[in-house]
Amino acid sequence: MSRILTGIQSSGKPHLGNILGAILPAIELSKTKESLFFIADLHALTTTKDPKKLQENTLATAATWLAFGLDTSYNILYKQSDVPQVTELMWYLNCITPFPMLANAHSFKDKSNKLSDVNAGLFTYPVLMAADIILYDANIVPVGKDQLQHLEITRDIAKSFNHIYGETFVIPEAKIKEDCMIIPGTDGQKMSKSYNNCIHILENEKILKKQIMKIHTDSKDLDEIKDPDTCNIVKIYKLIGDPKNCKNLEKKYRNGGFGYGHAKSELLDLILTKYNLPRLKFQELMDNPEVIEKELEKGAKKANQIASAVMKKVKKNIGLM
Amino acid sequence: MSRILTGIQSSGKPHLGNILGAILPAIELSKTKESLFFIADLHALTTTKDPKKLQENTLATAATWLAFGLDTSYNILYKQSDVPQVTELMWYLNCITPFPMLANAHSFKDKSNKLSDVNAGLFTYPVLMAADIILYDANIVPVGKDQLQHLEITRDIAKSFNHIYGETFVIPEAKIKEDCMIIPGTDGQKMSKSYNNCIHILENEKILKKQIMKIHTDSKDLDEIKDPDTCNIVKIYKLIGDPKNCKNLEKKYRNGGFGYGHAKSELLDLILTKYNLPRLKFQELMDNPEVIEKELEKGAKKANQIASAVMKKVKKNIGLM
Repeated sequence: MSRILTGIQSSGKPHLGNILGAILPAIELSKTKESLFFIADLHALTTTKDPKKLQENTLATAATWLAFGLDTSYNILYKQSDVPQVTELMWYLNCITPFPMLANAHSFKDKSNKLSDVNAGLFTYPVLMAADIILYDANIVPVGKDQLQHLEITRDIAKSFNHIYGETFVIPEAKIKEDCMIIPGTDGQKMSKSYNNCIHILENEKILKKQIMKIHTDSKDLDEIKDPDTCNIVKIYKLIGDPKNCKNLEKKYRNGGFGYGHAKSELLDLILTKYNLPRLKFQELMDNPEVIEKELEKGAKKANQIASAVMKKVKKNIGLM
Repeated sequence: MSRILTGIQSSGKPHLGNILGAILPAIELSKTKESLFFIADLHALTTTKDPKKLQENTLATAATWLAFGLDTSYNILYKQSDVPQVTELMWYLNCITPFPMLANAHSFKDKSNKLSDVNAGLFTYPVLMAADIILYDANIVPVGKDQLQHLEITRDIAKSFNHIYGETFVIPEAKIKEDCMIIPGTDGQKMSKSYNNCIHILENEKILKKQIMKIHTDSKDLDEIKDPDTCNIVKIYKLIGDPKNCKNLEKKYRNGGFGYGHAKSELLDLILTKYNLPRLKFQELMDNPEVIEKELEKGAKKANQIASAVMKKVKKNIGLM
């Protein structure tokens, strides 16, 4: 049996880049293999100290996945903090994780020039990540290339535990997510929260429109002939439009008499039409947070069952039972 | 209300030094103030990787305290690992504990010349210790002078949490244990496991006798007059003997015709008589580990109740509920 585990950053409403690059492919994969998705609220605590924001982000993150059709009858969506056994396991793993292994992790090294800003959570984050994975006997972990080192650490820790205490954990394999799909932001750079160039397709129409209107273009007049191949609006449009509509848009660019304002309006229309259902579903969920919470509780219950079976084995092998 | 919290190293059958210097005074104190005692099996994992030894040590530690009369109808004796919320709290505290605070802890600095031997458990140990204490709203923590820095770290972390998330934790106070009672070992140095000079008064008679026979003396013959003031046997005898018997022993030394072998026999007799009841009780408990386990379960239940109330507040303030 193969079981996929994916951690989801709890950073609120995801942007188009997250949705096309991560969420939709993961939901597709979850249709073929049992998948666990956890919203990484414990990890979020290493940076967020705002209780209200943490709660809102968690709800919005869960609502997004549900709105885009994650099937929780077969898959498991849960809050990391709802399975506190992960911190218990983390402690056991801490006790077999050499300090230098963590000191060499990129996530720490990148920040080691200002140690006063580094907290112990950030430093030991790779151990929590290891616990997140091996607590569920997950054997496939989709990771970006930047997370590959952390998965190597997970594998090292799991092997080391098995070596010391006897066979206990499944050793997970990385499934490297090919970053072939580069989603451009409103400024043409890769769409990213830190560049403030995002399009949040689940936002209300007013905000969404404002974000689309921000897309950088050259300053050609309405009448002028325009080049669709270099235009950010077209690049984004083509990621989600069907081939016929894309061709139509390109034609209008080449004909002239079609301004960037028009193109932006068409992109807005496309988003509103194409994502009408997820948008409605998302809003409905956000208006009824108790429904989201119920889904998360259901997931936590299932995740806890798997975790408890693994922890029973762990505690026995360690000498705590 | 004041609540005392004491962590007990899970290192098996304690020696006379532990019993006179730590256990008996703590049991005395527990008669006047509600006391929580936890057997630090999670901490033990930073050094022990032997499941069988960990279990045996935990049972022997619990049996010792019970044998010496700890009253668990009012006080709470529990295994640290039986309240896993402590690791959950530890994670939250990790996220607000600056890396340099831990890097400056003596427990880490002392070992920092050989970092490959340091595990992440040892490095973050002061955070677990903080969680151990503030999870129970303890306001008095008896500590030796060597543990004072760790209690300062606990206080700093608790204050920092209260500052970020609002009043949540009681800030504990250290109660410094005066080390006025130096218990000499069989070689005259301070009795300590690491010097291999211990007398284990709960051991079976054969082992106990062997340990007592090891006590260093000078090489005076049986007939010679001896100096009780410089003799290790007398020093140990005087710690537990009543004044009359002590005087008698000293007299025999000064009279001559009394060998060190005789003195050792008298010390053995004294221990066997004085600690007859705890020795019987200890053996009875060790022969019936299910009785010890039941006691620890009872303690865990009570400790969990206190911890749950505190954690409810913590999770609410942090934004996880």
